[in-house]
Amino acid sequence: MAVVGIGQCAWDMLAVVDHFPQADTKKEALVWEEQGGGPVATALAALSRLGVACRFYGVTGDDREGAAIRHSLMEEGIDVTGLVQRPSASSQTAFIAIDKFTGTRTIFWKRPSGETLRTDELPLDFLHNADFLLLDGLMQDVSLFSARKARAAGIPVMLDAGRIREGMLELARLCDYVVGSEEFAAELGWKDDPGSFRQEVRKHGFGITTITLGSRGSVTFADGDEIILCPAFPVETVDTTGAGDVFHGGYLYGLLQKRPLRDAIRFASACAAMKCRKLGGRAGIPRLSEVRQFLQERGIADCL
Amino acid sequence: MAVVGIGQCAWDMLAVVDHFPQADTKKEALVWEEQGGGPVATALAALSRLGVACRFYGVTGDDREGAAIRHSLMEEGIDVTGLVQRPSASSQTAFIAIDKFTGTRTIFWKRPSGETLRTDELPLDFLHNADFLLLDGLMQDVSLFSARKARAAGIPVMLDAGRIREGMLELARLCDYVVGSEEFAAELGWKDDPGSFRQEVRKHGFGITTITLGSRGSVTFADGDEIILCPAFPVETVDTTGAGDVFHGGYLYGLLQKRPLRDAIRFASACAAMKCRKLGGRAGIPRLSEVRQFLQERGIADCL
Repeated sequence: MAVVGIGQCAWDMLAVVDHFPQADTKKEALVWEEQGGGPVATALAALSRLGVACRFYGVTGDDREGAAIRHSLMEEGIDVTGLVQRPSASSQTAFIAIDKFTGTRTIFWKRPSGETLRTDELPLDFLHNADFLLLDGLMQDVSLFSARKARAAGIPVMLDAGRIREGMLELARLCDYVVGSEEFAAELGWKDDPGSFRQEVRKHGFGITTITLGSRGSVTFADGDEIILCPAFPVETVDTTGAGDVFHGGYLYGLLQKRPLRDAIRFASACAAMKCRKLGGRAGIPRLSEVRQFLQERGIADCL
Repeated sequence: MAVVGIGQCAWDMLAVVDHFPQADTKKEALVWEEQGGGPVATALAALSRLGVACRFYGVTGDDREGAAIRHSLMEEGIDVTGLVQRPSASSQTAFIAIDKFTGTRTIFWKRPSGETLRTDELPLDFLHNADFLLLDGLMQDVSLFSARKARAAGIPVMLDAGRIREGMLELARLCDYVVGSEEFAAELGWKDDPGSFRQEVRKHGFGITTITLGSRGSVTFADGDEIILCPAFPVETVDTTGAGDVFHGGYLYGLLQKRPLRDAIRFASACAAMKCRKLGGRAGIPRLSEVRQFLQERGIADCL
């Protein structure tokens, strides 16, 4: 099994504060550390820890952060042959302030200063042996191109839809699975009412669509009229950074195992919850045996 | 002329945002860069650009930020022979979010992980040739020790009082000039009424005391009953980071020139305002000829 991911990778600075400050004040951080991040890159890190071979296509700059991003992905065992380093460019970087008490995170981020990945930079066989393609839609041309290639090759595609950007709705229609943030859903008219949002999903012609709602769990619009509500597992949350990304990784793993949709989502939810027990997008990502144990301890045997 | 500074030095990451975000959201930065910072270090950078020889005593870690801090001070021509590098320690670092429209800054910062400067790490002749000592009071023992040494040697001392910490009031009493932030003043009962605050200054036994009030200027309690109100110069503010530090540098320069207190404060105010026209604590610090021109253009000839 192999998953190909095309999208963002970042270097995150994480600072824990006793509460998020008012503007124009000074706030001393209690903890301060750095870690790899970025939606697709972190989702692949989750898949890799679950035992799935992963290839990543994206860009970094030629700065310290770019080297750290590459190293962090290699450490997870992800194939980064397709990670392009732009000369004289800075990498995507984020500063993330984490509330000590709630674990909620506020993200300041900057895009890489270099050009995004070009279609002609993808090798001709970029989908070789791929069982799934994961996209975040932030690099419009290469996302549309690769989604079409995957469809033509019969490879399913999952989209992490953070916000509606240029080309995002067209891209979403090309994908078999759309996982949208609450912000993405709100832009489409989400008002906390799954029944009425069902029409939006149909109107836009999306495939199986999931809206992730943080501590309130997720809502999935399956084929037909089925709506799957999955609560979040309560955990001692240290940091929610990357929880959505890890959800995508866990969800994709469940789908690769050909499990029922409901089980795949519950597995994803467990992976995301477990991630929140540690600081940063990646430190808390569980291995397969740990997810199984987590689910068994909660009476959910033989889930995956 | 020479000034000795003992206190904080930091490495600042600066991000300009269209407005300071709500907690638990994502905010893309419009500009993102790094620069040297820290109260005493930046005040010395100001003095150095005005032509005064400066020596700095403080600590960094042995990390990338520590090397960058040292390099930035050397580039300003500051003597960093007394800057101690702690092994296996991180340096003081800050992430500063700057509001694009108002230039106000919100600071997330972390202390260096290593031990603060010890008294026995100051060379015996640390005050050699010094005409002034500048402290920020964040390293309690070494601050009290060096203030007493300076007094004994007849060298005037200025304190940058950010907040009331352990030993800060005792230290302030040892200093000839106290320059306090509005937060420091508020902790002493400041209620925007110079007349009544005069009693607080007397009660605590402080010398000449200035409260800096950002865009509202400054209030100085001179000897006797004199109170000097100095408005801030209106400028096109890009970033207020370090404005107070540059004020201290300009003020100290004026005092070194033996100018009347009122002129020294106005000069300091000009330096601080000019700094705000560029991003970061140091990029906008003016040279002496630039301050003179700035003042002349505003009809303040022969100020310094």
